[in-house]
Amino acid sequence: MTIVVQKFGGSSVANPERIRRVSERILQTAEAGNQVVVILSAMGDTTDDLIELAAQLSTNPCKREMDMLLSTGEQQSVALMAMLLCDMGYPAVSLTGPQAGYKTDGVYSKARIIDIDTKRVLSELNDGKIVVVTGFQGLAPNGDITTLGRGGSDTSAVAMAVALKAEICEIYTDVDGVYTADPRVVKKAWKIPEISYDEMLDMAAMGALVLQPRSVEVAKQNGIPLCVRSSFNQNEGTIVKEVANVFKELEKDLVVCGVAHDMNVLKVNLYGIPDQPGVADLIFSSLANEKINLDMIIQSGRGTPGEKQNLSFTTGKDDAWKVKSVMNAVVKELGAEGFDTRDDVAKISLVGAGMITRPGVAANMFHVLADNNINIHMISTSEIKISCIVDADRIKDAAIALHTAFGLDRD
Amino acid sequence: MTIVVQKFGGSSVANPERIRRVSERILQTAEAGNQVVVILSAMGDTTDDLIELAAQLSTNPCKREMDMLLSTGEQQSVALMAMLLCDMGYPAVSLTGPQAGYKTDGVYSKARIIDIDTKRVLSELNDGKIVVVTGFQGLAPNGDITTLGRGGSDTSAVAMAVALKAEICEIYTDVDGVYTADPRVVKKAWKIPEISYDEMLDMAAMGALVLQPRSVEVAKQNGIPLCVRSSFNQNEGTIVKEVANVFKELEKDLVVCGVAHDMNVLKVNLYGIPDQPGVADLIFSSLANEKINLDMIIQSGRGTPGEKQNLSFTTGKDDAWKVKSVMNAVVKELGAEGFDTRDDVAKISLVGAGMITRPGVAANMFHVLADNNINIHMISTSEIKISCIVDADRIKDAAIALHTAFGLDRD
Repeated sequence: MTIVVQKFGGSSVANPERIRRVSERILQTAEAGNQVVVILSAMGDTTDDLIELAAQLSTNPCKREMDMLLSTGEQQSVALMAMLLCDMGYPAVSLTGPQAGYKTDGVYSKARIIDIDTKRVLSELNDGKIVVVTGFQGLAPNGDITTLGRGGSDTSAVAMAVALKAEICEIYTDVDGVYTADPRVVKKAWKIPEISYDEMLDMAAMGALVLQPRSVEVAKQNGIPLCVRSSFNQNEGTIVKEVANVFKELEKDLVVCGVAHDMNVLKVNLYGIPDQPGVADLIFSSLANEKINLDMIIQSGRGTPGEKQNLSFTTGKDDAWKVKSVMNAVVKELGAEGFDTRDDVAKISLVGAGMITRPGVAANMFHVLADNNINIHMISTSEIKISCIVDADRIKDAAIALHTAFGLDRD
Repeated sequence: MTIVVQKFGGSSVANPERIRRVSERILQTAEAGNQVVVILSAMGDTTDDLIELAAQLSTNPCKREMDMLLSTGEQQSVALMAMLLCDMGYPAVSLTGPQAGYKTDGVYSKARIIDIDTKRVLSELNDGKIVVVTGFQGLAPNGDITTLGRGGSDTSAVAMAVALKAEICEIYTDVDGVYTADPRVVKKAWKIPEISYDEMLDMAAMGALVLQPRSVEVAKQNGIPLCVRSSFNQNEGTIVKEVANVFKELEKDLVVCGVAHDMNVLKVNLYGIPDQPGVADLIFSSLANEKINLDMIIQSGRGTPGEKQNLSFTTGKDDAWKVKSVMNAVVKELGAEGFDTRDDVAKISLVGAGMITRPGVAANMFHVLADNNINIHMISTSEIKISCIVDADRIKDAAIALHTAFGLDRD
C-alpha cells in the first residue's frame, strides 16, 4: 500500500459543511487503496480570533503562551475531522503534533522541525486507520508546544510525507494550482500542469502564496512530489517535481514560466554606515538572532575606501516592529547616520529555469517596466529569477505588462 | 513558602475582563508570599460551543475525539491567563494537563486521575513562577488526552493540592460559599462558614452543586482543607475541613446543617424480575461497565421465595440514552417484564452530622412532606443524610418547608 499525505488549509475546513466535503475527498483516497495521513490547519478564522483574544489581554504576548494558545485551533480541526470520519464508518484517529512525533528546535512561534518519530502514525496506519494530524506544531526539547509560525502547516505535511516515504504530498488550498501569474490580476494567466521545485520555490518565495517556500525546500531536498490543488473542485492541480517539462511538452520555447508579485514587502534603508570590516556581519547576525527572514539585500556606495556606505534590504511587513528595534540598536552600535523603512513598495519577479541559457531577460524586463513608466527601487537576480522592487500602486500594471511581454498570455 | 492551589471555573474566566479580575486575585495571593498554582476551566461557553460544533458533524461523537476537542478549551484559558500575568510583570507559565503531570486511567470522557508527577510544576514554582494549569484533563497510559468529564476541574485542583501538599485548595465559583439551602429557592437560607468533608460530600452529592463530590472525596482522603468562595467579590467563603464546629460555635443545637435539592434525577423502574441469585450483580455490573453512576437503589417485592421482584434506582439525566440501552439488554437477559424511566422527579435531602445521635429526624422529615401534600417516591438514608425522591414540580415547596421545620431559617 502506498502512503498519501493530504494537507487542507484553514479555508478548506472553515465550517462543518466544508469539513464534510474534505472528508469525502479523504475517503476517495482511502478507498482507492491508499494509507492516508491528513494534515489540517485551524478552522477558518480561528487563529485570527485567538490572536485578537490575546491582544485584548496583552500588548506583546509572550511567545511561549501564544504557541500554547494557537495550537488549540488545529487540535479542534483534527478532532472534528476524525469524529466525522468515524461517524461515517471509517476508522480514524486524530493526533496532535507532539503525539504524531514532530520534534522541533524549540523556538517559540517560529520553530523548525528537526525530526519526526513516526512510530505512532505508522502503528495507527497499520491498524487500518486514517490518521488526522495537526499541522503547524510540534514538541520542543523541553516538552513545550511550539508552532512553526503561520503557514507552517504546508511544511508539516511535506515533512510527514518525507518521514513516511509517502508516494505524494497533496496540498489542498483555495486555488486550483500554480498560475503563470495571479489570475485575479492578470486575466490571461493560466495554470501550469508541472513545475520544478526550483521554479516553484522562486514562484513561492516571490509571492505566489500557493505553497510555503519552506515546504518546497523540504520536498526538493527529499525528492517528494507535491500536488497543489483545490479542495473546492476536482480539477487537476499543479505537480511540483524534480524535472518538469511542461513547456517542452507544449512545444513552446518559453524562457519565463511565470510572473509573481508580492505585496508583503518592507524595505529598510540603512545609511551613513562607517566603512569597516564586520559591518554586514553585525547587521545581519542581529537580524538573524531575532529570526527575521531577509529577502533582497543591496549594498551601495562608491566603494572609495573610508567612505560611508548605504545598505538596503527587504523583509516581510509582519516583523516591522522587530526590525525597527534591531535597527535602532544597530545604528547606535555602528555609529551609522540612521535608517528608514518603507511599506508602500512591492516586488515583481520573473521566474523560469529557461532564463539561465538566455541572455537579455533582465534587460528586457527593465525595458518593459520603463516603457510603462514604472520606477525600479531595487533589483536582485538569480539563475532562474529576476526581481524588482517597485511602487506598490504600480504592481498590477507591472504584472500584466510582463506577462504579455514574455509571451505568457493565453485566452 | 506555602503552596496555595486556586481553581477558577468557566464563568470566572468567561471573557477578557473577568480574566483580568481573576489575575488580580492570583497576584494578591502571590504577593502575600505564597507559591501559587492556578487551575482553570474553559472560558464560559467554550465547552458547550465545541459540543455543539461536534454535534453538527456526528450524532454520536467518538469519545476519544471529544476529549481531543474539548481539552482545547482549558488550554486556551491557561495560555491567556499566563500571558496576561507575564504582561503584568509576574513570571507565569501555562501547562496542559499532560505537561503538568496528570496521569489518568485512560477512560475517555470520564477519566480518573491515578497519579500526578509534580516534577515540572515544582520546578516552575521553584523558578518563582505562577503555574497556570488546565483543569479537567490528563494523559492516558497510551499517550492520548483524556478528560475527567464535565466538572472535573474541581477534582484536578484538589488532586494537585494533594500532590503538592498545598496549604489549602481554594475553589472560586459564582456563589460565595455553601448555604443551608439554595438561596434562590429558600429565601431564609444562609452561608455556612465551616462544614465537614462528610457534610459537604452529602450536600454536594445531594445537588448543592458548589463542589464536585469527587473533589471533596479526594480532599477528605488526604486531609486537604478546601475553601469555596466567589471570584466576583471578596466575601469569606465556606471552609471545608475535617472537624467543623460552626453549629457548636453558634451555640445552636442543630441536627441538620442543610437542605439540598437536585433536579438532575432520572428514576428507572425495572419490574417483573425473576427471583434468582446474581440478578442485582448482572444489573449493576452492566451499568458499571458503562461508567453510569447510580445514586439511590431500592429493591421491593414481598420477599416470597420464587415471586418476581421490582427494582428502582436513580441516576443523572445525562446518561439517559446509555441507561436505556443497558436496560434493554438487561431485561432481555433476565427475562424481566420490562422497565420504565421518569425524569419528572427530583431529590430533596437533609444533611447533618448531628442526625446520627438524634432519632426521629427521618420521621419528622416525612411528616413535614406529608403536611405539605408532597408525595414521596423513594427514600434513602445514611448516617448523616436522608433523601427523598418527590415530584419535580414540588421540590421548591419541599426545600422551603424543611428549611423552616428544622430550624435553619435566618432573616
